[in-house]
Parts: sequence; structure tokens; C-alpha cells
Amino acid sequence: MASSQPPPRPISSTLLLALVPIASWFIVRPFLDPIPSLPALYTSIGFSIFTFMATLYLVPALGPTFVKAHLSGRDLLKVYATQIPESLGLVCASVYILALILFIPFAFSDSLTIRSTRTPEGIFVSEFPHSRLSVYLSSLLSLLIATILGFLDDVFDIRWRHKLPIPIIASIPLLMVYYAERGNTHIVVPLPLRFLLGSLLNLGPLYYLYMSLLSTFATNSINILAGINGSEVSQALIIAISVILNDLLYLPWPIGFHLPVHLLGSNAEVEFGGVWSAGMAYGSKELVERHLFSLYFMLPLVAVCSGFMYHNWYPARVFPGDTLCYVTGMAFAVVGIQAHFSKTLLLFFLPQIFNFVLSCPQLFGLVPCPRHRVPRFDADTNLLHPSKAIFMKPPSKLAATVLRILSIFKLVVLTVHPSGVILETTNLTILNFFLVRLGPMNEKRLVQVLMCCQIGGSVLAFSVRYGLAGLVYDGDRR
Amino acid sequence: MASSQPPPRPISSTLLLALVPIASWFIVRPFLDPIPSLPALYTSIGFSIFTFMATLYLVPALGPTFVKAHLSGRDLLKVYATQIPESLGLVCASVYILALILFIPFAFSDSLTIRSTRTPEGIFVSEFPHSRLSVYLSSLLSLLIATILGFLDDVFDIRWRHKLPIPIIASIPLLMVYYAERGNTHIVVPLPLRFLLGSLLNLGPLYYLYMSLLSTFATNSINILAGINGSEVSQALIIAISVILNDLLYLPWPIGFHLPVHLLGSNAEVEFGGVWSAGMAYGSKELVERHLFSLYFMLPLVAVCSGFMYHNWYPARVFPGDTLCYVTGMAFAVVGIQAHFSKTLLLFFLPQIFNFVLSCPQLFGLVPCPRHRVPRFDADTNLLHPSKAIFMKPPSKLAATVLRILSIFKLVVLTVHPSGVILETTNLTILNFFLVRLGPMNEKRLVQVLMCCQIGGSVLAFSVRYGLAGLVYDGDRR
Repeated sequence: MASSQPPPRPISSTLLLALVPIASWFIVRPFLDPIPSLPALYTSIGFSIFTFMATLYLVPALGPTFVKAHLSGRDLLKVYATQIPESLGLVCASVYILALILFIPFAFSDSLTIRSTRTPEGIFVSEFPHSRLSVYLSSLLSLLIATILGFLDDVFDIRWRHKLPIPIIASIPLLMVYYAERGNTHIVVPLPLRFLLGSLLNLGPLYYLYMSLLSTFATNSINILAGINGSEVSQALIIAISVILNDLLYLPWPIGFHLPVHLLGSNAEVEFGGVWSAGMAYGSKELVERHLFSLYFMLPLVAVCSGFMYHNWYPARVFPGDTLCYVTGMAFAVVGIQAHFSKTLLLFFLPQIFNFVLSCPQLFGLVPCPRHRVPRFDADTNLLHPSKAIFMKPPSKLAATVLRILSIFKLVVLTVHPSGVILETTNLTILNFFLVRLGPMNEKRLVQVLMCCQIGGSVLAFSVRYGLAGLVYDGDRR
Repeated sequence: MASSQPPPRPISSTLLLALVPIASWFIVRPFLDPIPSLPALYTSIGFSIFTFMATLYLVPALGPTFVKAHLSGRDLLKVYATQIPESLGLVCASVYILALILFIPFAFSDSLTIRSTRTPEGIFVSEFPHSRLSVYLSSLLSLLIATILGFLDDVFDIRWRHKLPIPIIASIPLLMVYYAERGNTHIVVPLPLRFLLGSLLNLGPLYYLYMSLLSTFATNSINILAGINGSEVSQALIIAISVILNDLLYLPWPIGFHLPVHLLGSNAEVEFGGVWSAGMAYGSKELVERHLFSLYFMLPLVAVCSGFMYHNWYPARVFPGDTLCYVTGMAFAVVGIQAHFSKTLLLFFLPQIFNFVLSCPQLFGLVPCPRHRVPRFDADTNLLHPSKAIFMKPPSKLAATVLRILSIFKLVVLTVHPSGVILETTNLTILNFFLVRLGPMNEKRLVQVLMCCQIGGSVLAFSVRYGLAGLVYDGDRR
């Protein structure tokens, strides 16, 4: 069953070359007549394809450089002990951010925005969008800081408790510019609470706290659902695709379409579309712009994640390091905050929320937390088994109660001494939970289960967002 | 003469504590009546004092962490071989950029700009300065990228030829936002050339090339004038102070003053001042704002450099690494470009220009270039001597001619075989030039000579800028 370490994954240069003209066409398209209604979106797609190619090519090319700089480690769940390059998320982050920077003139310069006023069907501004540029730049700053801090974490191996506030530092530029730009701190109150709070509530400073906590959650929740090949990048990929699907609903589409929301329990019959009607934005320029902003950040992220996943897929040839988790998490926080759909965004994090809640007893010291909580690898069968945390002294009453409740719901398996004292518990992560419920499986199958769970979570998220949300919110979605 | 490695330099906690109320007063001052005419400048000074304290404290505190992460090296010009923490410029850059980010709401929010309209003497905008915020943010992006790339250079030890374009990448956000904001690409033509080119010349794309070359020069010219304790940071400190002095000339001062420019060869008698007259800006709101922008970036830079210099001074307890050179160089390029005084800025780089021109034969392969060109250390006398480059094969005719000319001007000392073939030359750097002209000296004296040279250069720069420039430019200084 044992396998030796495989060589770097091959890249088809034919495929790469074939993508060049396609990507170039998308970038050039906005300058050709007839000018499309959303010109910068074409450029963004073109840039994303180039980003995909750059990641696909650079990650294996730079691997040896990382090994030389002591940035490597062995794969704990394999039989071979070869050093695998670590922290390659830095390459992803650099390519991603560089693409976003080069995109600035296309998204904000006159040449495109002024030209676009010629198409009366689209929804556009003719004056220079200074305010949106500031927001875009502050988002880039936050992504860059997340990258630096993630890489510092990889180099200096910062302790868990010290790295919790890192995303808060990275979110400072977002908050500063949000404040300087007099950002909205009102939230729409759910229908059942309106008799108490009115329909709009000004959270004031609490809104800033909420934003920095969102960054912290988005970043750390991906970082703690890690440890097996492809787990970090596949989460990021699926969340990014979900955000894109949600954004697409708000764009002005040239075709009419109909969303069967009544099947999902909504009272309203929602039909929208028709030539250049504005999707679910119902003609709101503001909403279209917000979701375009989100697309500009998510399209290249999907490209980078796909390119990286090719090399990080089981058996992994490279590791992402903390850098990838930080930068992807911050990217989600950025679009959630700046495009004002943080509640919808959180719905796409259902598996992460489950994993975080399940982890709490270990994260907050109720149950012993070993350095690594990844599943245990059985070299003979090549299967993963749930890993265990051992109680060196009997657990407190509270810990024992919590563990017994988790055990009843089959979230953990306990080893109990005949006297009734808990001796061991499986570690409190979603990966160990899968292994507890579905039995031992190999690493590739486990990451596939995780991905299915993430996709299932997104399907559920869409049902809740466009079905159930109608019960507690009206159309007023500021 | 030999000395053992000294312990970390002590920090007076009394001094640090005494600075807290002073810094706090400067930050709070803009909110107290009577509101000062330049409120954000007070905040900037307050932030700078905190920045100084943070650098002074954090650099030695984080030193051991850097050593643990393999970021250390021995001091080549000392008798001891202890590992000294390297790349501490990263700490400086982080503190510096964090201070600039936290400063955003003070520089741009309503609370200060709207309040300030109450003082009719000052020169202020009441509408929100979106465009200036974008420029500020793009500058921060460039500084952050310079930091990342500088640190990557330290970690991966990038080869000389590969790292030349690094500042160009870092300047991309500057250029992108300059373009998106429809930045001015006109230059004022010197008087003698106006009959040919008119008084204003649009450089178009060449202006962008000029800006990225300026970043490249400012960054690399500090990086190649390095190698002895305190050399990098002292250059940055003196240039930053020179820029600040120049900026102060353009602020509205409450007192009148008189600059004896006629002594410097200018025809015009320049007298300015009086209560709230606008210094050399002659009431131009635009000019005052540009130089305020420059001050916001330079004041904390001086603070960071002073704090770092305390620990980097001979005998150095920490090394700056490439990160410090990159971030300071980029900071100068940023203010030169955004505040439109790049020609004046270049005048403050006279020693760096001299060093660069002198280095050219080695940089471009005419003369052999050893890995390190730092002066040679004589452990017995504790003195530095000029280091030498050895010709493994006889130099080309061109190289020999160049070296003989340099030798005539006593810029180098050659070792010549009786047959007339050049065997050795002292390395072509300003440090070796000092040693050739002034004789062997110890490291501390050499860095003092370098600093005197830098100060002398700045004095000359001011004379040229406010004296001779009157001969080739009129008052039209766009």
C-alpha cells in the first residue's frame, strides 16, 4: 500500500498556450464595438484566466526555492518523509494581488467608464468613482496585510493565541476607510423585532466590531479546518464559487429567467429578467455595483485556487501554509463587508461554523488540545482514523457533560474507564467527525467528503437566503 | 583592540514613559479649542512620537525571534562571530505602515476637515477629499509591496540582477492610481529650452516610465550604499529630515521670515511670511496640501529611523536587511511623485548618485564585482581599509581607460604590474573612496564621514534648489 513520493505534477503547455488567446480576447473585448454593457467584467475574466495560468506555472517552479529557504515540511499522513515545499500560498497571494492591482485602470479609469455611457441599456456612472476606488484600494491593503502576516506566521511560527488577533490588524485599513468615507453603520432589523427596534438600527461602533470579527472568523475558520491535502484550498474554492453564483443573480442579464423561490417557501413569486433588466437588483445601480465589486475579487480568487489545487491535490506536491488561509479568508471578509452581504456570506461558511462550534471545547481549554488534531494515519492500510485527545487527569464535570452530549449526537467517540471516567475523546473537528460517522477512509476520499459537505452547505445557504429569509426580512435589503 | 559583542543596548523606560503624555497631547490637540490651522499635522507628530517609541522598544524585543527563524548573520567587520539579528527593517516597516494606516481617519475624516473650516485663516477643503484618499492609499500599497518584496529578498536571498525590477513592481499601485485619477503628465520646461518645446511639455507614457525609474533609483541607491553599521538608516534619516525641512517652507507660518536667496545667486528677492501667509506656497492650497502629504509620510519615517538607528549604531546590535532600504526608498519615491517635487528629491540623493555613477563600471560588468564590496577590516588595528577587486585576466581597454581616469581624480587606487597591466583596483563605492582619500579609519568614523557627506549634499541641494534653479525656471512650478 505504501507509495513513494510522486514527481511534480505535469502541466500541459498546450493547454496553457491555448488559454492565452482566450484570456487576451476577454481583456481586449471592452475596447471593441459593440461595447459590452459591463466592460470591466470581461477584463476581469481575462485577468482571471491569466492568473490561473500564472499560478499553475509558478507554484511548482518556485517550490525548490521555498525548500532552500527552510520553508518545507514532511507530509504527516504519508509513508514517505520527503520535504514538501510549504507556504506556497504566498505565490498564490502575490499573483492574486498583482492581478487585482493591474486591474485598477480597467475598473476605474475614464477610458472605460466614459465609453460605457454610450450604451444606454447598462447602469453606469459617468463621473469618476473616487469613493469606489478608495474602497477598492483599502481592500487591497487588507489583503496585502493578511498576506504579510500569514507569511510571517509561516516563517516565525506564531503561537495560536498570538495569531488570533492577526486578522483584526489586517482589517484596520478596511475599517479606517469605511470610517473616513462615512460608511453606513445601519442594519435592517428582522420583521419580528421591528416593533421593538424600528426597521433600521444604527449599530455605530458595534458595526466596526462586527466587521473586524467577521474578518477574524472568515480567516481563522478556514485555518482551523486544515491538515489534509487540499482541504484549505477546496473550502476557499467552493465558497468563492458560491459567492460568484450569488453575485450573478444581481447582474443585468440579457435573457429573462425565473427563480422558483415559491418552492423554497417564499410567499412572493419572483420573476425577473428581460433584455437588460437588472436581475435581482431590480434596477438598483448601487446593488449592481456592489456585486460587480465582489466579482472583481472573487473571479481571480477562483482562478488562483483552481491553479493551486491542481498541485495541492492528494498526494500533495506543495502545501499552502497559513498564507493561503489568511488571504482567502480576508478576501471573503472584504467582499462581505464592502458589498454588504455579510449575512449571506456567513451562510456559505456553514461547515466552518459547525467545525468552529465543535472545536470550542478544545480551543478554549475545556478539553486537552494536542498540537495537531489531524486524523491519524495508518500506514498499513493507507486509511485515516479519528485522532484522539487523551485526558492526563480526569475531565472536569463541565467537560465530561459536554463530551457526553456530543457523544449522544455521535459527534465524538469516547473511551471510558469501567469506573465511568472519560479517558480519551476523538478530537473535536469536522474531519474526525466524518471519520467517526462514515468509518475510516483514505485521505483523498476524506477531502472529497469535505467538499461535498461544503457544496451541500452552499445549496442549503441559497435555500435559506432566497427562501426562508423572506419570512423575516422584506425587500428592504440595505 | 579586539572587543567582545556588547549586550542589547539599554532603553530608558523613564524616557519612554515621559514621551507618552507629549505624544498624546499632540494627538488630542486638534480636538481642543482653539482648533489649530493644520490639525492633522499635530496628530501626525503625535503618531510619530509613538512610532519612535514602538520602534525603540520592539526592535530589540523581537531580535531573538528573528535569530530563531534563521534571520541572522555575523558582522563581517568585527572580531566576534556572534549571530546578529538581521532583517529588523521588517519591524520598522510594519510599525511605520501601521502608523500611516491608523492615521487615515485623522487625515481624511469629516470630524477634522469639517471642524477645520471654522478657522478662516487656514487653507482647507470642506468637501471630502476622495481623490487625496485614493492617492494616500495607493502610496500605502506601494510601501507594503516594497516591504513584502524586501522581506522576501531577505528570506530567499534574491540575486542582484533579479531584484533590480522589484521596485518597479512596488510602484505599480502608484502608477495605476495616478493613471486612473488622470494624473498630470506635464512637466515645466527649463527657460533655455522653451523656444524649442514651449513652457509645458506632456511626457505622456514617458512620465510613467520616469516615475517607475525614480522608485527603482531611490530604492536601489540606498541598498547599494550599505555594508557598515548604521549606513543605510543614517542615509534614510538625513534624506527624510531634508525633505521635511523643504516641506516646512511651504506651510502657512504664523511668523514672517526672510530667506536670503540673493546670497545664493538668485535674482529675485524672496520675502514671505506674515500672519498665516502661506510660506513659499504663496497661498496655493494645492502646494500646501502636497507638502502636508509629504510631511505625513516623512515625520513617522524620521521617527522609525531614529528609533532603529539607536540599535543599529556602531557596534550594531541588529541589522536592517534589505527591507529597510526598500521601504525607505519607496517612501521617498512616493512623496517625490505624489507631492510633485521629484527633481528636488533627487538633489537630496547627491551622495547616492555619486555612489551609483562610481559603481557603474562594476554594476555593469566592466570591472569584476565581488559579492561584497564593503571595506576590508583589519582586526589588529580595528581600522577599515579600502577593499579591492582583483582582475583574474587583464582588463579590457575600455575598463583600463575608465579606471585610469578615476585614478587621476583619486577616486580609486590601482595596483599596476611593472608591465603596465592593472592587477587590482579598490572597489568602486563611496565608502572605499572615503578611505582612499582620508586614509584608514574605524567603522564608526566612516559612518560619521558618510553622514557629514549626506548633510553637505543636502545643504548643496537647498542652495541649488532655491538659488541656481531661479536661473533656469521661473515661478511656474507645477
